[in-house]
Amino acid sequence: MKNIEKTKTQAAGTLVTPKGFHAAGLHSGVKRKRNDLGVIYCEQPAQAAAVYTMNQVKAAPIYVTKESIEEGQQLQAIIVNSGNANACMGEQGMQDAYKMREVTANKLGVQENDVAVASTGVIGIPMPMDKIVPHIEKLKLGQTKMEADAFAESILTTDTFTKSVCCETEIDGETVTMAGVAKGSGMIEPNMGTMLGFLTTDAVIEADMLQLALKESVDETFNCITVDGDTSTNDMVITMASELAGNHSLTPDHPEWGKFVELMKSVSQGLSQAIARDGEGATKLIEVEVSGAESDLAARKVAKTITASSLVKTAIFGSDANWGRFIVAVGYSGETIDPQNIDMSIGSLPLLQKSEPVEFSEEEAKAYLQNETINIYVDLNIGNGSGKAWGCDLTYDYVRINASYRT
Amino acid sequence: MKNIEKTKTQAAGTLVTPKGFHAAGLHSGVKRKRNDLGVIYCEQPAQAAAVYTMNQVKAAPIYVTKESIEEGQQLQAIIVNSGNANACMGEQGMQDAYKMREVTANKLGVQENDVAVASTGVIGIPMPMDKIVPHIEKLKLGQTKMEADAFAESILTTDTFTKSVCCETEIDGETVTMAGVAKGSGMIEPNMGTMLGFLTTDAVIEADMLQLALKESVDETFNCITVDGDTSTNDMVITMASELAGNHSLTPDHPEWGKFVELMKSVSQGLSQAIARDGEGATKLIEVEVSGAESDLAARKVAKTITASSLVKTAIFGSDANWGRFIVAVGYSGETIDPQNIDMSIGSLPLLQKSEPVEFSEEEAKAYLQNETINIYVDLNIGNGSGKAWGCDLTYDYVRINASYRT
Repeated sequence: MKNIEKTKTQAAGTLVTPKGFHAAGLHSGVKRKRNDLGVIYCEQPAQAAAVYTMNQVKAAPIYVTKESIEEGQQLQAIIVNSGNANACMGEQGMQDAYKMREVTANKLGVQENDVAVASTGVIGIPMPMDKIVPHIEKLKLGQTKMEADAFAESILTTDTFTKSVCCETEIDGETVTMAGVAKGSGMIEPNMGTMLGFLTTDAVIEADMLQLALKESVDETFNCITVDGDTSTNDMVITMASELAGNHSLTPDHPEWGKFVELMKSVSQGLSQAIARDGEGATKLIEVEVSGAESDLAARKVAKTITASSLVKTAIFGSDANWGRFIVAVGYSGETIDPQNIDMSIGSLPLLQKSEPVEFSEEEAKAYLQNETINIYVDLNIGNGSGKAWGCDLTYDYVRINASYRT
Repeated sequence: MKNIEKTKTQAAGTLVTPKGFHAAGLHSGVKRKRNDLGVIYCEQPAQAAAVYTMNQVKAAPIYVTKESIEEGQQLQAIIVNSGNANACMGEQGMQDAYKMREVTANKLGVQENDVAVASTGVIGIPMPMDKIVPHIEKLKLGQTKMEADAFAESILTTDTFTKSVCCETEIDGETVTMAGVAKGSGMIEPNMGTMLGFLTTDAVIEADMLQLALKESVDETFNCITVDGDTSTNDMVITMASELAGNHSLTPDHPEWGKFVELMKSVSQGLSQAIARDGEGATKLIEVEVSGAESDLAARKVAKTITASSLVKTAIFGSDANWGRFIVAVGYSGETIDPQNIDMSIGSLPLLQKSEPVEFSEEEAKAYLQNETINIYVDLNIGNGSGKAWGCDLTYDYVRINASYRT
């Protein structure tokens, strides 16, 4: 991730900026007010790749989307609803997910197998199909920011803002664009907490190669964020490539493959940070960077353990430089460490050298910890592995939101 | 754990009820008001066993106590302070822990190697030895409830009440008594969160056998509680056997070995429940019982995953029968399940049968969830393994306490 800045440019675009994509979103009545139904459409069948929740209990849309993508490794549309997760609803849930796929396919004149279905919201309540089905018919596709924003809003649950990133790069002399939208915001945890992410690109790339890039990107971005450690039944990240950019088809042998992967990581990282920052009740984004680990994987694991600690999260909320909690988390991360040889700092303020406290100004620390983004650096001093993870503080509002989500 | 009730009787006693034990506790000034220094003493060297934190970053007292117990497998005293954890203090921390051991040994006229040291509190602050050392000299041992209570108070940090259990049974026709005290209350998690537990018994039993019984008891009790998933640098459970009860020496071949193990589990379970109930900011004790698992170990793991979920904990705080969150936790527990075949209930109210929702009265559920103890039952319907875990709800007060613990 070190050279992201060199390989991509953040563009002002949206989900429909990559060539060939259209979007729509509206309010169907499942949620009280906000948009709760949306669709992404590609003018031609797009190469498709996806990663899904690791939870053994999977919601119906996960099965249906998997079936669609496995059939032809392509998608032409993604239909998404929020407000109801369609999880733990048995056979009826499957029928409802298939029905959403069928109605969407018919409306758009595409193959059923080229439609993915995603749902997010409450578990164990029958899908209000009487609201969803007629409103699928009413979705009005467009290619402007307005429609992209309407879609981005339609997938939110307790999120407080829409999450959208667009980046571009040049491959084979052609501009290749990738954009993404995502939703958080509770249950965010390594290996897909309740999180939906949809990436669109116009790159020319086959589905298998797209999957390869997606896996690598997700491991270093979406899988490195945590809000509360819960992993949901519904999560997925889907990417669609319209192949309209005009580059030579991308494979790891392509001389600019690395640029494409960095492009995807940039989009994914931007969305991941936005999700962490918008964790339920969060007031601060916590970014932990670990270096000197046995491997990059180990570094990410240590970083994630720190961001996942309730005690770290509450300390950051309270602007308290309680590094004891940081090192405790390092110690139970399960990764190889030398307990006597850890360096740690927040921002530019060293807290710990060789595992012993460094004198620091409490005022300076407190002032730093009142920023909206908190950087924690940990050097394990045993190897060359490095990695990052993102999380948020744990606040009164997290408790308030979750003590009364369902009722 | 099924036959606990048959093999032990809860006694009204304290830490000093088992024959041979004395205790003391006082306020040395490390904490503002409450007792913060205590000692347990045995009239003769007691057989000793202990389990320690799994955190790779261990506080100095852990090393010193290990050294003491490994030397002769016996202890005659345990010196404990609260308010300062003596963790991450490098060589100075080790010297301070040794100094506490030395001063205690001299005062009591016992071998240094027969003294254990335990500390709990803030990490990374030098030990206020100027307060601790002179106050060790002032500790006044006694064998009444007053001294036992003074000790129980001296080990607390953010705990809101002292935790003490005493049980007795009959072995070889003799009354065998075991008592314990413990402290929680944040950072409580499988494999020793910041938790200190001290068990005294007059049973005749050699140290190796005591260790065997301790390991089994801890796995089913202390290691089955979670408050926030953090595992501290300082935790330990120590047990001392004065061997004054007059029974034949206990080994697994003794016909009443099982009664002894149940006695220890009863004491440990009582303390574990008290720790969970007194989790930081907690208003409710959550007891999860899982049956039908692949093994007892798997059942405990699933139960622990449910009690550890922030979303479950906030739902219970809000008296919300949001079983979707319970089944989500089952799904990411990592244990073998059949996602289509899970039964679940709270109290006597079925919520889920074969993974599908059962209609239930929201009022009845809400009323039940306002109790101080919440029982969640999960039947995985795939095997004969069963087990329990304990936790607490996640409240505004947890955030308040931990946003400002250090400063």
